[in-house]
Amino acid sequence: MLKVEHIGIAVASLAESVPLFEKLLNTPCYKREKVESEQVETAFFLQGDTKLELLEATGPDSAIAKFVAKKGVGLHHIAFEVADIEAEMQRLAGEGFTLLQDRPKVGADNKLICFLHPKDTNGVLVELCQERK
Amino acid sequence: MLKVEHIGIAVASLAESVPLFEKLLNTPCYKREKVESEQVETAFFLQGDTKLELLEATGPDSAIAKFVAKKGVGLHHIAFEVADIEAEMQRLAGEGFTLLQDRPKVGADNKLICFLHPKDTNGVLVELCQERK
Repeated sequence: MLKVEHIGIAVASLAESVPLFEKLLNTPCYKREKVESEQVETAFFLQGDTKLELLEATGPDSAIAKFVAKKGVGLHHIAFEVADIEAEMQRLAGEGFTLLQDRPKVGADNKLICFLHPKDTNGVLVELCQERK
Repeated sequence: MLKVEHIGIAVASLAESVPLFEKLLNTPCYKREKVESEQVETAFFLQGDTKLELLEATGPDSAIAKFVAKKGVGLHHIAFEVADIEAEMQRLAGEGFTLLQDRPKVGADNKLICFLHPKDTNGVLVELCQERK
């Protein structure tokens, strides 16, 4: 793992939460992006070398809709940047962690991503991500 | 805010979670520290320019004990490094955020810290921290 690439935060409404985080962080949102396959719309903020990613569900089957219904808005996941996502998936599977994808899938922000099941990671939803070439 | 200084993760047992995060992150825990005033013991990992701080309650009145009882183990807070914590507290109070301390208090890792109430911050417990001089 190279660094904390971003921290994912589940929100109910980007229309409300983007201005809120702009005030909190004292920095503008620099990008918004819909990820149709995940039924989410995202908004990004930069803080030093790490991003905050706000996530709003765009459909009832979105993992974010289910998370918000169950746990409420707030911290959702940590994403770690890796140099070689397939090698890291293999290393972690060998260590006994449960991968939620067999192969990397395409996520927001031009990334290949894979999630680990939080049951093995102290309740923390962990994402691996690698920049797409 | 300068950067994400650390991400706080509530755990039930450092004895179990430290080896788990060492496997997950493929890096050793580099420091453990008890903070008696907060009734917590902490363990730190470095990931790029950001730290992960595992927090285990050492007494029943610890905020971490209450969090784990209510929400379970997992992501607990984000800490942002600031250059001047008193100035940042004043700016955020002026923006309508609720500070949980009137004055900075001493936290783990040689920091002055102040928390913001999560009711104003999209359910995210936010810590400000500044290196003590």
